[in-house]
Amino acid sequence: MNKQLLLAKRPVGVPAEDTWDLIETEIPTVGEGQCLLKNIYVSLDPAMRGWMRDRPSYLPPVSVGDVMRAGTVSQVVESTIGHMPKGSYWQGMGGVQQFVLTNGKSWYPVDPQIAPLPQFLNVLGIAGYTAYFGLLSIGQPKEGDTVLVSGAAGSVGSLVGQIARIKGCRVVGIAGTDEKCNYLTEDLGWDAAINYKTDNVLKSIGKWCPDKVDVYFDNVGGPILDAALAHLNFKGRVVLCGGISQYNATDSFYAPKNYLSLLVNRGRMEGFIVFDFARKYLEAARDMVGWMQEGKIKGEYSVYEGIENFRETFLRLFSGDKRGKVILKIDE
Amino acid sequence: MNKQLLLAKRPVGVPAEDTWDLIETEIPTVGEGQCLLKNIYVSLDPAMRGWMRDRPSYLPPVSVGDVMRAGTVSQVVESTIGHMPKGSYWQGMGGVQQFVLTNGKSWYPVDPQIAPLPQFLNVLGIAGYTAYFGLLSIGQPKEGDTVLVSGAAGSVGSLVGQIARIKGCRVVGIAGTDEKCNYLTEDLGWDAAINYKTDNVLKSIGKWCPDKVDVYFDNVGGPILDAALAHLNFKGRVVLCGGISQYNATDSFYAPKNYLSLLVNRGRMEGFIVFDFARKYLEAARDMVGWMQEGKIKGEYSVYEGIENFRETFLRLFSGDKRGKVILKIDE
Repeated sequence: MNKQLLLAKRPVGVPAEDTWDLIETEIPTVGEGQCLLKNIYVSLDPAMRGWMRDRPSYLPPVSVGDVMRAGTVSQVVESTIGHMPKGSYWQGMGGVQQFVLTNGKSWYPVDPQIAPLPQFLNVLGIAGYTAYFGLLSIGQPKEGDTVLVSGAAGSVGSLVGQIARIKGCRVVGIAGTDEKCNYLTEDLGWDAAINYKTDNVLKSIGKWCPDKVDVYFDNVGGPILDAALAHLNFKGRVVLCGGISQYNATDSFYAPKNYLSLLVNRGRMEGFIVFDFARKYLEAARDMVGWMQEGKIKGEYSVYEGIENFRETFLRLFSGDKRGKVILKIDE
Repeated sequence: MNKQLLLAKRPVGVPAEDTWDLIETEIPTVGEGQCLLKNIYVSLDPAMRGWMRDRPSYLPPVSVGDVMRAGTVSQVVESTIGHMPKGSYWQGMGGVQQFVLTNGKSWYPVDPQIAPLPQFLNVLGIAGYTAYFGLLSIGQPKEGDTVLVSGAAGSVGSLVGQIARIKGCRVVGIAGTDEKCNYLTEDLGWDAAINYKTDNVLKSIGKWCPDKVDVYFDNVGGPILDAALAHLNFKGRVVLCGGISQYNATDSFYAPKNYLSLLVNRGRMEGFIVFDFARKYLEAARDMVGWMQEGKIKGEYSVYEGIENFRETFLRLFSGDKRGKVILKIDE
């Protein structure tokens, strides 16, 4: 049987227990030009909260009654597709379910010799590509620039800062605990880290970014975005990657009051979606593998187990109670 | 004697009567390498409200006790600068005063054969250059794009739409009276105009921009910016030129709640300051003169008289009680 997590109702605010239903269905039969994959690792991402909203976005909303959309690392169980033989590993949008039937479109090969499988949902997956293209293609940092990152101890944020350091930038991170801040400065060697729960973020950015902020990579939105805008440098770039602080907001969405800083500083705020760069994933993967082998990139992740623990694991993204990329293991 | 309008105190909200002082001082004496100009036409611009605030911006604030900063068209009265002979006309930042002494830096020649003098504060001045570089360099419209403009009956807005039409775009304007809307559609031939005081702006943009908004040129900020963001097209551009709806806000600045539309649509919101393009003003002037002669650009302006009427004329910018560019004539 195939355990599947279905979206049962659209949540308001923090998703409650009855948001999803765990059901069992028949494992689908493999037809001509198809392939059955077993999902082993499921990627848990803040963006999934957005996919649950009933409004147009860069992907259609997950329909009520459909399998919850998610990135996975999966293994072929049965196949009639020549280049996807039984036993091979792939990354794609397998969804929160044990098995998925596909025609192979939008699945990318995974070589378990290169790195542990979960890393293909982190450094060598969507998180890594998001950091890579968001920072380099949208943020366009130059050597000597100051790069400020929020959600800095998260999967994308920590990679953004590490890539920025490789490019010769001063890097300052914003995170939610002293332990995370220590990780950024001690383990990753960043120039400074700000604990947004205990520090005055506006003043701290001024202190740690004395030459102002050339690139602000925003994963959180809210008052932190406003504080970053207040310190934007001439021709500064704000990379809009996410706004997790507001994803569960119900009545009082916090909008950026300081957006006119973009005007006076001739700044640019630009959004992007990593899927647009799919044709260049290989380029990113090559760089990332190289940097990992040189020890310049550390990709931290936490693996939780059991499809039945999806909700409590997902909510760790919003409470911040986790380290690095959050991954759910649902099979061996 | 030299009548000068000084900033007397920093206003809160709508500038009150005691914001400025009109005084008389001695006309300055011309030294070596200097030139005395008589200011004839003074440009009244929303940006002047920003210059009165005591905080860092793209120009230093006007100090309390200083002459109010403003663009002018001026005539040389006495000169020891070879290329600025007596009787010649110039445009520059002469300030709200009858006479100004200068070393000639940042003054640009005015040829009264080409157009009436006030036009050098409008189509052939900062307003025109703002429209030209803001739309073409920042907005980068392509033929067939939909360009939405707020403050559309104002000096900059009306020129933005006219240039967009020359470039083959569909043009929709937002203005504050039916008379202004008729002017845009009837006199200027735009595709549609929205009266933000009587129409539902969000729905009207959807109606008149069926292929969504490729370029939104924003002069006003506030809820209109939010409505435009809601209809932004894939890879849409928001050109931040101003935010006049919020310039006199005291306690409740309206921030753009829909800024994450930039993320889902891979959009870009970018500010600019026309002064950065000073080295290319001549290029803009050449195009604008050509388009005026071909009848493709109409530059409407309203001339009011008397330096003593500065405040009531300035406030017309915010009440909308004017047509096109607002100019104050303070001398013959």
